[in-house]
Amino acid sequence: MDRPTLHVRRVGIDTWRESVAYLHRDCPVVRAAGFQALAKVTVNADGQSIAAVLNVVDDDRIVAPCDLGLSEDAFARLQVAEGHAASIEHAEPAASIAALHRKIAGERLTRDDLAAIVRDIASARYSKIELAAFVVATNQFELDRDEVLHLTQAMIDVGHRIDWQHDIGSGPVVDKHCIGGIPGNRTSMLVVPIVAAHGMWCPKTSSRAITSPAGTADTMEVLAEVALPVERLTEIVRATRGCLAWGGTARLSPADDILISVERPLAIDSPGQMVASILSKKVAAGSTHLVLDIPVGPSAKVRTMPEAQRLKKLFEFVAARLGLVLDAVITDGRQPIGHGIGPVLEARDVMRVLENHPDAPHDLRTKALMLAGRVIEFDPDVRGGDGIRIARDILESGRALARMNAIIDAQGRRVDAPAPGPLVHEVCAGADGVVVEIDNLRMARIARLAGAPQSPGAGADLLRKLGDPVVRGEPLYRIHAQFDADFGFARRMAEADSGYRIGETAPAARGWAQGNGGGSA
Amino acid sequence: MDRPTLHVRRVGIDTWRESVAYLHRDCPVVRAAGFQALAKVTVNADGQSIAAVLNVVDDDRIVAPCDLGLSEDAFARLQVAEGHAASIEHAEPAASIAALHRKIAGERLTRDDLAAIVRDIASARYSKIELAAFVVATNQFELDRDEVLHLTQAMIDVGHRIDWQHDIGSGPVVDKHCIGGIPGNRTSMLVVPIVAAHGMWCPKTSSRAITSPAGTADTMEVLAEVALPVERLTEIVRATRGCLAWGGTARLSPADDILISVERPLAIDSPGQMVASILSKKVAAGSTHLVLDIPVGPSAKVRTMPEAQRLKKLFEFVAARLGLVLDAVITDGRQPIGHGIGPVLEARDVMRVLENHPDAPHDLRTKALMLAGRVIEFDPDVRGGDGIRIARDILESGRALARMNAIIDAQGRRVDAPAPGPLVHEVCAGADGVVVEIDNLRMARIARLAGAPQSPGAGADLLRKLGDPVVRGEPLYRIHAQFDADFGFARRMAEADSGYRIGETAPAARGWAQGNGGGSA
Repeated sequence: MDRPTLHVRRVGIDTWRESVAYLHRDCPVVRAAGFQALAKVTVNADGQSIAAVLNVVDDDRIVAPCDLGLSEDAFARLQVAEGHAASIEHAEPAASIAALHRKIAGERLTRDDLAAIVRDIASARYSKIELAAFVVATNQFELDRDEVLHLTQAMIDVGHRIDWQHDIGSGPVVDKHCIGGIPGNRTSMLVVPIVAAHGMWCPKTSSRAITSPAGTADTMEVLAEVALPVERLTEIVRATRGCLAWGGTARLSPADDILISVERPLAIDSPGQMVASILSKKVAAGSTHLVLDIPVGPSAKVRTMPEAQRLKKLFEFVAARLGLVLDAVITDGRQPIGHGIGPVLEARDVMRVLENHPDAPHDLRTKALMLAGRVIEFDPDVRGGDGIRIARDILESGRALARMNAIIDAQGRRVDAPAPGPLVHEVCAGADGVVVEIDNLRMARIARLAGAPQSPGAGADLLRKLGDPVVRGEPLYRIHAQFDADFGFARRMAEADSGYRIGETAPAARGWAQGNGGGSA
Repeated sequence: MDRPTLHVRRVGIDTWRESVAYLHRDCPVVRAAGFQALAKVTVNADGQSIAAVLNVVDDDRIVAPCDLGLSEDAFARLQVAEGHAASIEHAEPAASIAALHRKIAGERLTRDDLAAIVRDIASARYSKIELAAFVVATNQFELDRDEVLHLTQAMIDVGHRIDWQHDIGSGPVVDKHCIGGIPGNRTSMLVVPIVAAHGMWCPKTSSRAITSPAGTADTMEVLAEVALPVERLTEIVRATRGCLAWGGTARLSPADDILISVERPLAIDSPGQMVASILSKKVAAGSTHLVLDIPVGPSAKVRTMPEAQRLKKLFEFVAARLGLVLDAVITDGRQPIGHGIGPVLEARDVMRVLENHPDAPHDLRTKALMLAGRVIEFDPDVRGGDGIRIARDILESGRALARMNAIIDAQGRRVDAPAPGPLVHEVCAGADGVVVEIDNLRMARIARLAGAPQSPGAGADLLRKLGDPVVRGEPLYRIHAQFDADFGFARRMAEADSGYRIGETAPAARGWAQGNGGGSA
């Protein structure tokens, strides 16, 4: 006796990256083979097969008893027409699950193990549960540096890789990246136009917010289209030398895109996963030279200098073996960068710096120039130490602004640019003194509760920064929101703890890399 | 501006325990609040609120733009009528997620942390991803014994607890449980009728197969209905003193039922989770005395005697603090018990033992009598050492069979009892000699590939056991299957490695607890 045949039916339900098969409860296959809801199944049709999760349906309008309904994602992946014959069976676990179990048990994985796991993840053979297990297990039993290298290489191998050799031969393809965790830190949107104006190739892709109030992709989206297929991305870079695209559309590291969907809700960001995620995307984008920003501070991702040094060395180890030239910079991560937190407010800050506006945030400008200078020094014709001066010339002359506008136009300028959220609340100082602490995590939380990044105009706008004197009752920052409920959440959170601490003397500056060639900002 | 109101619509899709909300892509809420597929949302209606996962729908036949569609599970949990006004918002993480993050980071959790986590799990506020993270994190950073106690207590507190005091005052309510891992080990189906015939109260609930070819509930289901609500379960026990029900329907430990749905695909069964799972269900079922079977063997769950002793002490520590009298027995787990592996074949073995049939498996009978004897000795009127003799009398006199039939009739006898799978393949010895090894894991894998437990007649039927002499070409076991594809999978797996090893001399018996009061079986 063989399994009966079913007929494919497209069910108009978008389950995002999770493929769902819908079978009617009276379907003979459900009854004969004892399928249960949420079972993992393999759907076979026309020589193709995909993995899916089963939902059992009681409504004939969704699927009839002889239909095999497929969610939009599953239908797209199976690539057969509606009505095509198909069969379904209990899915065997993905081949690499044995390696996953070994990692859960604390063992070290080989290059082949990691390659098999990443291939299975990229081809959607892992359930959410198995993905979470991989993320937690590799977080707890920290991957050693060889495992991180193999994981990174495996992620590169399953993705698309852009080749710029026809365009620039062996010349540098540059990029700049931050490990994240500092609200408002939108230096990429300044570094890219500056270095592109210097003539360097800079195909920058960024993420959307994971646990933060805005990713670079969210902020850039206030100004321009960011969901660019690889073909458009390459055209834009050929035309303008730079781009600021969302990495998700480009599918440069599809396994990483899937892992992030699990890391986000768990707020897990282990060193190994961070290195693999960042470097796989850089290599896939064809970058040959990377400046990496590692902010350190009591409420940053990296809390201490020794931890930052360890992370730096892990990045350097993996990058060197991938043939990527890396300049990792440890920076001051004690507070948010710029004034705005949230897509619209951050985009405003970026444009003010580019416009040499008197209200442009000084710290954002200074840090962006320092990083752009480091990137420019990848240019073999630039003398060591000259980068920051060149960057400043490009910014002050207006050439960076012109280049940014060219990039925005090339990506597709947004005509209905959103405004800051209309609901505004000022959070005020409870005492006279000096700002001695601004908690990055707290500020991010408040901005997210206010609605960022889903409401692009929501967030926080900082009026005072570390070391600024304040008078009791004077506003420290403004909360912006679009919706009443969000506004209430954010206000209550700020009332419970504003994220600011007022003290008597300004906090001492430390020896982090700064924008003025070694001096303090 | 406040969120617009939607109208509840029941969508006939069974997503099992995962609550799904279906919103049309053109729904104003989706557009205004930037909801994405798979986002976690909170649905509010009539003062109630439930957590759900969002699926975005493009088909008006499923939901219209102003509908809030709910899967069967979500609809049942929200408890409002179709058409009722409802709103939806981004879900904040469950309150206990901070404690989960601390566990992921390796910290020890307090009683309150674990209580909060278990409450959130039981009320379906954890996503699959968060559940998997909890399971992996508590597997890796092993829970200490106080954490296991608090986890067990928390699981008891969120479930229903059966109270037998009206029925038997302070008299013992007994149970027998095995930690699992040994195919064919269906002693519960013998112990329950024997001790019930002795007059003891034995409200036995069991699980379905997790990673095995059959759980006791799967095997009992061949003979009788096992999905019994708590009310029927208690009635049956009042009438017959015993029952053999599936624990899932009784919802005695709802948090554990949910955790198992994640542990199963990950094949994780850590000591702490095992103790909490087993003991929470026993206490919830109202048991006061428990005999626990801990099989040890090279392919059992517990591989070594020291490991078995550690596990035994963990069970004893937690049981004592819950007021449960525990007799933990370490048994011989070197091979499957009985002949059959898979629901129908195992049920046949059980009935043969009860019928005192000449082909009844000796090892299953012996082990069941030993365990039943231990349970009977919980009776204050039975002298130490007399239990096994009483158990043997009950079995040999036919009283155990009569009681089993009474239990089967009370639960609902199955009239269309399934037969062994019609596709049969004999796996034969490759050499002359003696059976020196039978791999439990391999045999379980082969039986599962053959289709067990979904095809109840599928599995393996062992013709030779440890120490039996064999001649080359003689059958070792038979594979039974219902479907061609399963049959092929199981045969190929058996051809690659039969699970049997033939040697020259019989393996030595060791000092495990056996059925003959200390002698060897």
